[in-house]
Amino acid sequence: MHASIKEHLKRYVAPSEEAIHLFKTSLNDISVSKGKYLLQPGTEVKYICFVVKGCLKAYYMDEKGNKHIIQFAIENWWICDFEAFYNHAPSRLYIEAIEDSQLFSMRYDRLEQIYKEAPVFERYFRILITNAFISQRQRILSSLEKDTKARYLEFCKAYPNIENRVTNYHIANYLGVTPENLSRVRSKLKR
Amino acid sequence: MHASIKEHLKRYVAPSEEAIHLFKTSLNDISVSKGKYLLQPGTEVKYICFVVKGCLKAYYMDEKGNKHIIQFAIENWWICDFEAFYNHAPSRLYIEAIEDSQLFSMRYDRLEQIYKEAPVFERYFRILITNAFISQRQRILSSLEKDTKARYLEFCKAYPNIENRVTNYHIANYLGVTPENLSRVRSKLKR
Repeated sequence: MHASIKEHLKRYVAPSEEAIHLFKTSLNDISVSKGKYLLQPGTEVKYICFVVKGCLKAYYMDEKGNKHIIQFAIENWWICDFEAFYNHAPSRLYIEAIEDSQLFSMRYDRLEQIYKEAPVFERYFRILITNAFISQRQRILSSLEKDTKARYLEFCKAYPNIENRVTNYHIANYLGVTPENLSRVRSKLKR
Repeated sequence: MHASIKEHLKRYVAPSEEAIHLFKTSLNDISVSKGKYLLQPGTEVKYICFVVKGCLKAYYMDEKGNKHIIQFAIENWWICDFEAFYNHAPSRLYIEAIEDSQLFSMRYDRLEQIYKEAPVFERYFRILITNAFISQRQRILSSLEKDTKARYLEFCKAYPNIENRVTNYHIANYLGVTPENLSRVRSKLKR
């Protein structure tokens, strides 16, 4: 189970074996069954989570009860209510498992300690958060374009192989388009 | 002019005098007059820029010629087409000075060198990019709420004192609301 995180770390940085050991021994195992919640609004967020196996969605529920999907996470993604985690504020998001999921969690205070002991992880998370910032900005930009096909293709690139694991309805919600519109685009692309 | 960047660095990290010296000597001065461009689409983006004095906006122009403001920057903000900068891709954004502006620029390759020589700057940029990611996500969440007043107040918190330096039209564009709607909200708040 630890092999995936080790491989992921090495994709971005070159940590020593000692640093990898430190990181791995700071992780805890979490299992979330399909349809269950990793996080609900109003909760204190002490952990960030790395997906070892499974698929989850993070969403926001507005005052009218409409869901807005903010992020999906599959294998090798980190997922969290990052605002709540870093600002020690109560969560505003739901994080729900779409499939039975196995995760690693890392506590906030433990992560801060790791940064001190092995600064290579400052670099690891700097690179990851930069990528997340960029893809979030791309999402804002592509929502301005209003072309469902281009947005769907960008989605497939950002989340490789997820298009068969998540319903059409969920992807449409994430992209901010109607499910009917997305269905048409996907059918055309399959031809 | 270098005092502001030194102070900014020290707000987030504790660099040695040697590290500060390394950082400062890697900066170049740039001046951009009001109405002129720091960046235009299709350009290679070699620099990230720190605002010493002035005010700028980064915007995207869609195929129909509509402007969409993505970011403002005032004193002590970094501004860039981050996607283009990190991915070595041509810029998609315009960055235009709203006031006469003085900036520092830092080259990509120089920044990578600094990370190697003084990892404390990995931490500095990790913290900054995390904050930027969080406020960008907050912006997405508040655009779902669709309450102009709440969004305007969040804007004022994110960009303190900018509300008197940028036109009502520009702020409305950034928030994705009509200028008339925003004017009404601002008038009520002033009472």
